[in-house]
Amino acid sequence: MNCPGPEGLPLYDLSARTGTTLSAMFTLETRIRVRYSETDQMGVVYYGHYAQYFEVGRTEAIRELGLTYREMEESGILMPVTSMEVHYYKPARYDDLLILKTKIRQLPRTMITFQTDIHLENGTHLTSGSVTLAFVNKESGKPCRPPDQLLGLLNPHFL
Amino acid sequence: MNCPGPEGLPLYDLSARTGTTLSAMFTLETRIRVRYSETDQMGVVYYGHYAQYFEVGRTEAIRELGLTYREMEESGILMPVTSMEVHYYKPARYDDLLILKTKIRQLPRTMITFQTDIHLENGTHLTSGSVTLAFVNKESGKPCRPPDQLLGLLNPHFL
Amino acid sequence: MNCPGPEGLPLYDLSARTGTTLSAMFTLETRIRVRYSETDQMGVVYYGHYAQYFEVGRTEAIRELGLTYREMEESGILMPVTSMEVHYYKPARYDDLLILKTKIRQLPRTMITFQTDIHLENGTHLTSGSVTLAFVNKESGKPCRPPDQLLGLLNPHFL
Amino acid sequence: MNCPGPEGLPLYDLSARTGTTLSAMFTLETRIRVRYSETDQMGVVYYGHYAQYFEVGRTEAIRELGLTYREMEESGILMPVTSMEVHYYKPARYDDLLILKTKIRQLPRTMITFQTDIHLENGTHLTSGSVTLAFVNKESGKPCRPPDQLLGLLNPHFL
Repeated sequence: MNCPGPEGLPLYDLSARTGTTLSAMFTLETRIRVRYSETDQMGVVYYGHYAQYFEVGRTEAIRELGLTYREMEESGILMPVTSMEVHYYKPARYDDLLILKTKIRQLPRTMITFQTDIHLENGTHLTSGSVTLAFVNKESGKPCRPPDQLLGLLNPHFL
Repeated sequence: MNCPGPEGLPLYDLSARTGTTLSAMFTLETRIRVRYSETDQMGVVYYGHYAQYFEVGRTEAIRELGLTYREMEESGILMPVTSMEVHYYKPARYDDLLILKTKIRQLPRTMITFQTDIHLENGTHLTSGSVTLAFVNKESGKPCRPPDQLLGLLNPHFL
Repeated sequence: MNCPGPEGLPLYDLSARTGTTLSAMFTLETRIRVRYSETDQMGVVYYGHYAQYFEVGRTEAIRELGLTYREMEESGILMPVTSMEVHYYKPARYDDLLILKTKIRQLPRTMITFQTDIHLENGTHLTSGSVTLAFVNKESGKPCRPPDQLLGLLNPHFL
Repeated sequence: MNCPGPEGLPLYDLSARTGTTLSAMFTLETRIRVRYSETDQMGVVYYGHYAQYFEVGRTEAIRELGLTYREMEESGILMPVTSMEVHYYKPARYDDLLILKTKIRQLPRTMITFQTDIHLENGTHLTSGSVTLAFVNKESGKPCRPPDQLLGLLNPHFL
């Protein structure tokens, strides 16, 4: 069961609240229109550009939680990517309207993992990607704990 | 033991020929200078751009074998990426000269996997990535066998 | 005087209809959120990426007219860019919400020129760009007239 | 008359030294192999990516002069682009080896302009671009004079 946010697009997955801890998570839906620049001569989206789509999904997920990645960075915390895994099932094409479902399945400790699935409007599953990022203190360059504000905003989704 | 190719850059890993079948493989070394456009505001190469570096490594590996990806595509065979896995150990920075070692560890059947490790000149290991591609008939859009020419050129490296 | 379209975003410049032929034109407003991937290590949007923003402006302008660039291309007409001129007044930054005003000032003959101005929400003028594209027959690779459908849709804005 | 540099690639245009002040300039030749990621579904290099090629041409021109853009930036001087003009005559294609001739035609005062022409090996002229950059103090964000070191290295080419 989902609770539509403003404009019907951003969704909280409420199953988290009624289900067990295992199924607790935070989910956000975002839409991205494929740009011409993102295609290659095979006539489909270049495989490297999905990283940008995942990034947009993450950015909007954090914004939906109630802060912005920009603010986090300005407050002195960087989030470099430490690993990425992508599976390409079907190609996305120019002008396709992509539906991204970005999920945080676990409360972050030293790392945070975002799982993103990309579908077409007709439901076709195109891509799934998993991106893990560290929290790093901008000054020291050292790994650090996730900001309390982020944890505070995520916590209610994992009760 | 390595056998330097023209200009000392491309290398065949000859250990394949003296060692066991298990260690047989094809390796090519390529160099890429990081462009300003490839950095992001964290001051390092954006995580999504490594896919382009891996692609350059693949292109040059195939060229070193004796054909070009361009020719393969013109002959009617496309190679869409089906999965990618990347581990980011240390960041690459603007103007760094990256050394890519691209390996084919197994003779392809329906898929081919390229393993790429990126180091700095001083030996620092920055990134490792693994990209798997299918062979697809351009006309039919269906998966197909690898081209005989490619298999013929790869075979001697896996004896 | 402007007539807001759906969601208040797309605008027809009606001054065209009340003014002289000289001021006739077609204008569309689009919004783009700056992605992290679009920044560089100077902390601002890389100068080359504005070409992608202009492309999004063109795509949405054509869609607002009533056809899509995708359909035009599928119908056998390509629109390669023949020239571009960009002036960068102030930098765009990560997560900025850019407001693009894309204008067609003249009915196309063999070429079409899109003029795009980019502002922040507070009115700051960041960039202006002018991109000229040719109409080319996909089969022959030769220049051709603009499609009648496009001319028919543009005509009312230039009376 | 040209004087080949190391590996025959970088060239100083010596006509500058034998000609009049008007023809004085600095020229550097660089080669870039078109990446698959740089093509779009028209089967040619996306028009926005030439900005990256021009950037590589600039970077290598400054390196050939005897300093690096990286050092300039580390010494506290940024060079944001203020304008760009590009003419696209013929398309570049995947795997093409592009020859960039990057010219500085005038000693910089508050701005510096790089003119880049891109040819194929067979001499076909594909693109010409002109990019103007300002010198900006990283601390203050204010325009500044070009670094003395750069002027000192450019001067001999404009006698």
